[in-house]
Amino acid sequence: MNPATYGTYLVTQASVSAGRETTEIVEAALDGGIDVVQLREKKTTAQRRYELGLEVREITAGADVDLIVNDRVDIAQAIDADGVHLGQSDLPVAVARELLGPEAVIGCSASTVDEARRAEADGADYLGVGTVYGTTSKEVDAYKDGVGPERIAEITDAVSIPVVGIGGITAANAGSVVDAGAVGVAVISEITAAEDPCAATESLAAAVETAKAMGDTPPHDG
Amino acid sequence: MNPATYGTYLVTQASVSAGRETTEIVEAALDGGIDVVQLREKKTTAQRRYELGLEVREITAGADVDLIVNDRVDIAQAIDADGVHLGQSDLPVAVARELLGPEAVIGCSASTVDEARRAEADGADYLGVGTVYGTTSKEVDAYKDGVGPERIAEITDAVSIPVVGIGGITAANAGSVVDAGAVGVAVISEITAAEDPCAATESLAAAVETAKAMGDTPPHDG
Repeated sequence: MNPATYGTYLVTQASVSAGRETTEIVEAALDGGIDVVQLREKKTTAQRRYELGLEVREITAGADVDLIVNDRVDIAQAIDADGVHLGQSDLPVAVARELLGPEAVIGCSASTVDEARRAEADGADYLGVGTVYGTTSKEVDAYKDGVGPERIAEITDAVSIPVVGIGGITAANAGSVVDAGAVGVAVISEITAAEDPCAATESLAAAVETAKAMGDTPPHDG
Repeated sequence: MNPATYGTYLVTQASVSAGRETTEIVEAALDGGIDVVQLREKKTTAQRRYELGLEVREITAGADVDLIVNDRVDIAQAIDADGVHLGQSDLPVAVARELLGPEAVIGCSASTVDEARRAEADGADYLGVGTVYGTTSKEVDAYKDGVGPERIAEITDAVSIPVVGIGGITAANAGSVVDAGAVGVAVISEITAAEDPCAATESLAAAVETAKAMGDTPPHDG
């Protein structure tokens, strides 16, 4: 799949899923139109991530949606995922590329222009940029230690690979992230902790689509 | 390499190396005659394990000694290690075999006969059995929650792959582990925390060799 199509991006984490199974959350998000799923689940064992990954792989493949594994290249290979997402302390992008081959999708976290440029040079297919909003507060003057949409704009200006915003993004502020140049938004609890994860996905997708449609509309000549 | 030759087995862990670099410990152990090195380093990032792994790979290859990576199949592949060592909560042995191929050395931790039999059936090349001694105390009546040499004997009777004992093993008690049927002994702090890691390795190797020589001597007829 093409990361340029990653408008809504679910990152799974059982520990913030209100006691529900990750498979249940993923199914709801797929019903709501999610574009890509990342198996995160940092707090569990490799064995459990592998077993859960096999289940999520089956569900996402049935919906023709990409599955990305956080950090572990070996688990991605073992469950036949579409790729991996690497943080700045994980295996280097170039090493993952060597192991996974040219077809795999490799994403990389970046919070600065330098990190973004290096990831692109090393062969990343997309960037996860954040934390955008340090809190989910609506107060615009905050970003409480988040990099804000301004950093999204700086990074999308500096690289040519797609950028997905992550961190504190909701249906209410997703439009600002897309307006700043992101192809999409990645969320954990906005979907996993939602009372209705399907509806939460639909709201997020609608916000992204609306912002894109506005962005695509040529300005009226006065 | 053949795991049947793993008489002395070093498991690295920078956090119990008295402030010294893991590469320094490995070099000293190689000077002392260590037979195999496992890169453990559980408390650090994947990036750091990879970088350290490249250094340790160069050192061990120069000495023609096997290098095994704990848990991470991808790091083993990335640094061209000889294999992996898997715990009961890591990726399954059969999955690692699929990823690494038939030539790789795959070890598996086992503390019961059932775990040992399953690991052998799944394709493990050797077993790490322990904790043998829950404390490093010399009091024979202790094993303080360790499985003791008796479990080594039960497991070596039940499987045909080589068994290495691990946990609380010192030059003083290594002979009992070998007498019980282990091909060798694995240690962390006995070498990593030693004032002289080279001498500690030599003492351990001498204890293992002595026990093997005694075991190989046919009993005198009365």
